[in-house]
Amino acid sequence: MSSRADPRTTQLLEAPCRTVMRGSTSPMEDAAAERRKATFDSEELAAFLAEGKDNLLRREELVKLLSSQPWGDKTHRYFLTREQEYVCGLEAMVGMWKIMREQRMSMEDGIAMRSLAYFPGGLELHIGMFIPTILSQGTPEQQAKWMPLSNRLQVIGTYAQTELGHGTFVRGLQTVAVYDESARQFVVHSPCLESTKWWPGGLGKTATHVVLMARLFVKGRDYGPHAFVVQIRDLDTHLPLPGVTVGDIGPKMGYNSVDNGFLSFDHVRVPREAMLMRFAQVTEEGRYVPPPPDNQKASYATMVYVRATIVRDSGDFLSRAVTIATRYTAVRRQTASKLGEPEVQVLDYDNVQQTLLPLMARAFSFVFMGRSMMHMYNSFDAARARNDFVALPELHALSSGLKALCTDVTAAGIETCRRQCGGHGYLLASGLPTLFNSYVQNCTWEGDNSVMYLQTARYLIKSAMAAQAGKPLTGSAQYLSAASQQAGARCGVSSPADWCSPAHQLAALTRVAAQLVAQAAQVLARAGGGRLSFDGEAWNSSTVDLIRAARAHASLYLHQNFVDCVEAAAEQRELGDTTAAVLRQLVQLHGVSLLMEVAGDLQEGGYCTGRQAGMLREQQRALVYALRPNALALVDAFAYPDYQLNSALGRKDGNVYQALLDSARINPLNATPEGPAYKPVLQALLNPEVRSRM
Amino acid sequence: MSSRADPRTTQLLEAPCRTVMRGSTSPMEDAAAERRKATFDSEELAAFLAEGKDNLLRREELVKLLSSQPWGDKTHRYFLTREQEYVCGLEAMVGMWKIMREQRMSMEDGIAMRSLAYFPGGLELHIGMFIPTILSQGTPEQQAKWMPLSNRLQVIGTYAQTELGHGTFVRGLQTVAVYDESARQFVVHSPCLESTKWWPGGLGKTATHVVLMARLFVKGRDYGPHAFVVQIRDLDTHLPLPGVTVGDIGPKMGYNSVDNGFLSFDHVRVPREAMLMRFAQVTEEGRYVPPPPDNQKASYATMVYVRATIVRDSGDFLSRAVTIATRYTAVRRQTASKLGEPEVQVLDYDNVQQTLLPLMARAFSFVFMGRSMMHMYNSFDAARARNDFVALPELHALSSGLKALCTDVTAAGIETCRRQCGGHGYLLASGLPTLFNSYVQNCTWEGDNSVMYLQTARYLIKSAMAAQAGKPLTGSAQYLSAASQQAGARCGVSSPADWCSPAHQLAALTRVAAQLVAQAAQVLARAGGGRLSFDGEAWNSSTVDLIRAARAHASLYLHQNFVDCVEAAAEQRELGDTTAAVLRQLVQLHGVSLLMEVAGDLQEGGYCTGRQAGMLREQQRALVYALRPNALALVDAFAYPDYQLNSALGRKDGNVYQALLDSARINPLNATPEGPAYKPVLQALLNPEVRSRM
Repeated sequence: MSSRADPRTTQLLEAPCRTVMRGSTSPMEDAAAERRKATFDSEELAAFLAEGKDNLLRREELVKLLSSQPWGDKTHRYFLTREQEYVCGLEAMVGMWKIMREQRMSMEDGIAMRSLAYFPGGLELHIGMFIPTILSQGTPEQQAKWMPLSNRLQVIGTYAQTELGHGTFVRGLQTVAVYDESARQFVVHSPCLESTKWWPGGLGKTATHVVLMARLFVKGRDYGPHAFVVQIRDLDTHLPLPGVTVGDIGPKMGYNSVDNGFLSFDHVRVPREAMLMRFAQVTEEGRYVPPPPDNQKASYATMVYVRATIVRDSGDFLSRAVTIATRYTAVRRQTASKLGEPEVQVLDYDNVQQTLLPLMARAFSFVFMGRSMMHMYNSFDAARARNDFVALPELHALSSGLKALCTDVTAAGIETCRRQCGGHGYLLASGLPTLFNSYVQNCTWEGDNSVMYLQTARYLIKSAMAAQAGKPLTGSAQYLSAASQQAGARCGVSSPADWCSPAHQLAALTRVAAQLVAQAAQVLARAGGGRLSFDGEAWNSSTVDLIRAARAHASLYLHQNFVDCVEAAAEQRELGDTTAAVLRQLVQLHGVSLLMEVAGDLQEGGYCTGRQAGMLREQQRALVYALRPNALALVDAFAYPDYQLNSALGRKDGNVYQALLDSARINPLNATPEGPAYKPVLQALLNPEVRSRM
Repeated sequence: MSSRADPRTTQLLEAPCRTVMRGSTSPMEDAAAERRKATFDSEELAAFLAEGKDNLLRREELVKLLSSQPWGDKTHRYFLTREQEYVCGLEAMVGMWKIMREQRMSMEDGIAMRSLAYFPGGLELHIGMFIPTILSQGTPEQQAKWMPLSNRLQVIGTYAQTELGHGTFVRGLQTVAVYDESARQFVVHSPCLESTKWWPGGLGKTATHVVLMARLFVKGRDYGPHAFVVQIRDLDTHLPLPGVTVGDIGPKMGYNSVDNGFLSFDHVRVPREAMLMRFAQVTEEGRYVPPPPDNQKASYATMVYVRATIVRDSGDFLSRAVTIATRYTAVRRQTASKLGEPEVQVLDYDNVQQTLLPLMARAFSFVFMGRSMMHMYNSFDAARARNDFVALPELHALSSGLKALCTDVTAAGIETCRRQCGGHGYLLASGLPTLFNSYVQNCTWEGDNSVMYLQTARYLIKSAMAAQAGKPLTGSAQYLSAASQQAGARCGVSSPADWCSPAHQLAALTRVAAQLVAQAAQVLARAGGGRLSFDGEAWNSSTVDLIRAARAHASLYLHQNFVDCVEAAAEQRELGDTTAAVLRQLVQLHGVSLLMEVAGDLQEGGYCTGRQAGMLREQQRALVYALRPNALALVDAFAYPDYQLNSALGRKDGNVYQALLDSARINPLNATPEGPAYKPVLQALLNPEVRSRM
């Protein structure tokens, strides 16, 4: 605080001020001291996680590029009104698209920029769904027509599937497209309120076209949902075309830079060519040509891809939150036994470190899972080109359950990280509220998580039935073949440290998964009068148990993958010994904390004794203590630039209090010293004379 | 959709549109049908919960009154900018304050209006902390000076305690007030960045005065934090006074209608009379007169009061969220086995009802707990007037743990309710995001929840030590006296239905609490080298186990209170038989779902077998099925007017889709058909010719 008072006052304050400031170390000193504690090379791990040091350097270049753009400045990001968010988000996205095209950047660069800028805009579905759908479902002529326009942003599209009344149940969509063979046109119409398209990103005020999912009728027959390219706005005026009602659905919990929209049609006629006809076709005279039988599989493949990217992103989001909370709790000090003594670093409280370090292990595990998921998808994609779809059911089941598990844990984990930051975590300037509010939609979109778990459960029940029938199982559910023989097996752990062995961990996780699948099958059979049925009332009334089983299966797979990836990297010398040792501790902690969640089930099935279950707690404590000195170095290895996190609390240098104050000072509510309520509300109250003169 | 097309097209569409609309019932019909299923009189329960039918009628009057005020209209509430939120929130609060004074309303009316309007403003701490602190800590002269001005809002105050660097650790506050006996003034000063006051509500742009908690120095000696009334803004211009730096700390996750602020002082001199001197005093010549020994207790009493109100509010907030989600999932239908058949009500999915009904039981339990908590506080307050503080330690321990438990569960519960609403729950129009984002701060303010649990744990460990020393225990922790003898007891449940008995439930919850207290004591003793210490490293490194113990204790108390309240109401015929029967089912479900959370602990301690633990799941299912027909009637009994919930999904009439669309249509982003990004961003892209002409 600057000194403007007379010297006598200053002198008077000198000793008291010295007293209250004694014993404090600066947060920057704390951050530096933390980094000196590390037992491994954080930069080595960072390079490994980034799949090469080049990628880290490229990230730095992209940060420079982005932060030098007028739309790339994040200083005022948390102060924008909804309208500003929408306009600036669109501007940023258009800006990035142009840079990509002008500099002929790779897709990887594009993905990296998107993550660094973290400012979704009205083009999200143009790039993510409109263009891909035309490429995958359009005829060569349709692609030739739409792709150049789309690439130059002379048309902007979105993907209009979800309606007010139907999301999950796609077969229930109510928008119709009826073929009028006399005019060789489709009539597109929204017959009821619930058929209003609702949610598509970019639809509200941006898109000129949509890929419309509408129920196709030809000669009175219902062929179910098909895709049509429909223009909704005039290209000269940007006004809705006749018969089209379109607008923004209103503010959301987060993601407000995107204009999710509603759309309805009143008898709108479109040419026959509007239908994307690479697979299904309607001929001029009104004959419906069904798609080849593999078409259903192709659309499954698209879903699998989207879910794989959601799994990948979960590692990204959770690790950002863990980075912010770990950095802040390492430099935040609170409470001393005696005044004047150094206060305790918040990260040194048992409950804080036992919360954050297991979440950090989750974040690492998700990063590896995301990577494996993308590899699996890519090899499936290569096989698909040879018309080989054999990996699809397994991939579909895995990606569904992992989508649900990873997004559940990430959403809860971001909020947990926010609370570890205490009161200051509630400020947008901490970066965590925005992270949570924009992330949490992942739990309900692209398949609500309960529906996702149930898709995995369907696969598991089918596998269990096959195993019972003596059929050999392959893939992730293979353990179900041996499940009934191993029901009598007992856990071999005899000391807390035994719980660190991957073999013990995987055996226990496998056992829980098998047990919960068996339980779910039992509940389902009872509900179905002895028969296992895959839909209808019996299925719907067994979903709690089915979801539990799917979650256990996904957890097992997740952990197995984490073990495998770390061991492979160590074996192939992609990681030095000290780094590999720390990662192995994270793997151990991951397994132990997963098992603690199912301690009741482990005992219920008779696999573990109470003593063995109690040892999990002891071992978690031991692992957390062992990892504690490396906490900051581990989150540094995620290598998030300050620009990306945009968090006063997550700054790498630890200068958190200055950053909070700086952010408050530029807050628009402080634009005038008297504030915006003075004239309209306060003046007349505080100065009744003024009021009486008025 | 209105028909503007030619008759031929209309005819063409007729059959297809009929096809896609078949089999649907309207959401209003579903809501009505649900209410007809109820087995009890919802209005009777509503009157009981409101403590009298009069209060329900009064609520309706207040809704009419509020909604007729210009500042009481909620139509545009979800569309406000931060600046508008602040100004309108303040306006609403000033408006309510004026109505209360003009109509000489009771405090109950004031609390009801605040809850109905649900629009906190910059006066929150003026009313909630500034006035109460002057009343409790000011001398009669100080009260005579400040109270009339405060009541007329000619000064507006707030309570400035928390600093950038210190929240929980109040003894660590760094703002100083140094007595200058030669001038008979205090010099108030902020010696470092971290001493900046940070968070007080209303401080940013509203308050003219603060109750400042500053460390008092007299003649070089540090007397720790004391309270001072300090003016910070000029009453004529509303500008900060010389030496005062003040402003808003910036946007938060929620609660943005309140201007939480920062404040620092640069050698500001205030008169001796600024210190609130009812208890501690500084004489003119600079002699410090310490407060009477009971003063510490008085400040504990204030904390207890605040925590009791937080417990009460948790029932309020959780029940609002449960109301919205239950109403919406009862009328939302999704997925049919066959097209055209009626789709399933979302509330009929096993996982949805097994999520919502246990949360509903929680909400009821919290409502009863809040009521008991306020009764307990009031009887303590009456005793305190006779200088009887004997109930304080117990009340302090209970209110701390229950504050943490109820806010944890409520915050998570609101988000769970939001997700049960699927994608549409993500819209602000659902009411749930705002509820969550404004509520969640309860977990970190007025004592971070981990700190709260630890205060309860301190009491429990002390009680356990007293029990070991053979001292008699009273109050909520009494069960610890018998704990060691009962360690060999076993659960007597032999069928799922047995788990419904309050005796079995309470025995099991008691056992878990005793077991976790013993475990925590063991961990603490081990950390302290055999000794139980209540602070320092040993305590800080045992907090996970201590928190677990405190949570189990609070859960036990909560359930016991729910059982007792319902039984008392039934016995005193405050509830009819059918209503009491339904409430007893809720109590049973509450106990079962609490026990499911600790199924691992029940088995680990050898109290339950795996079979008994598994029966909890079966019984939860049976209870949920039994309660399902009453789901809507139960939430109706909370009697929230539509005005209060302000939720498109939580409307009592079920007309959810129309409400969503209505809310979207008035969204300001739709103010112009072409949208705000057309001119600045889109036009030049979509019309390159235009760009070339520019």
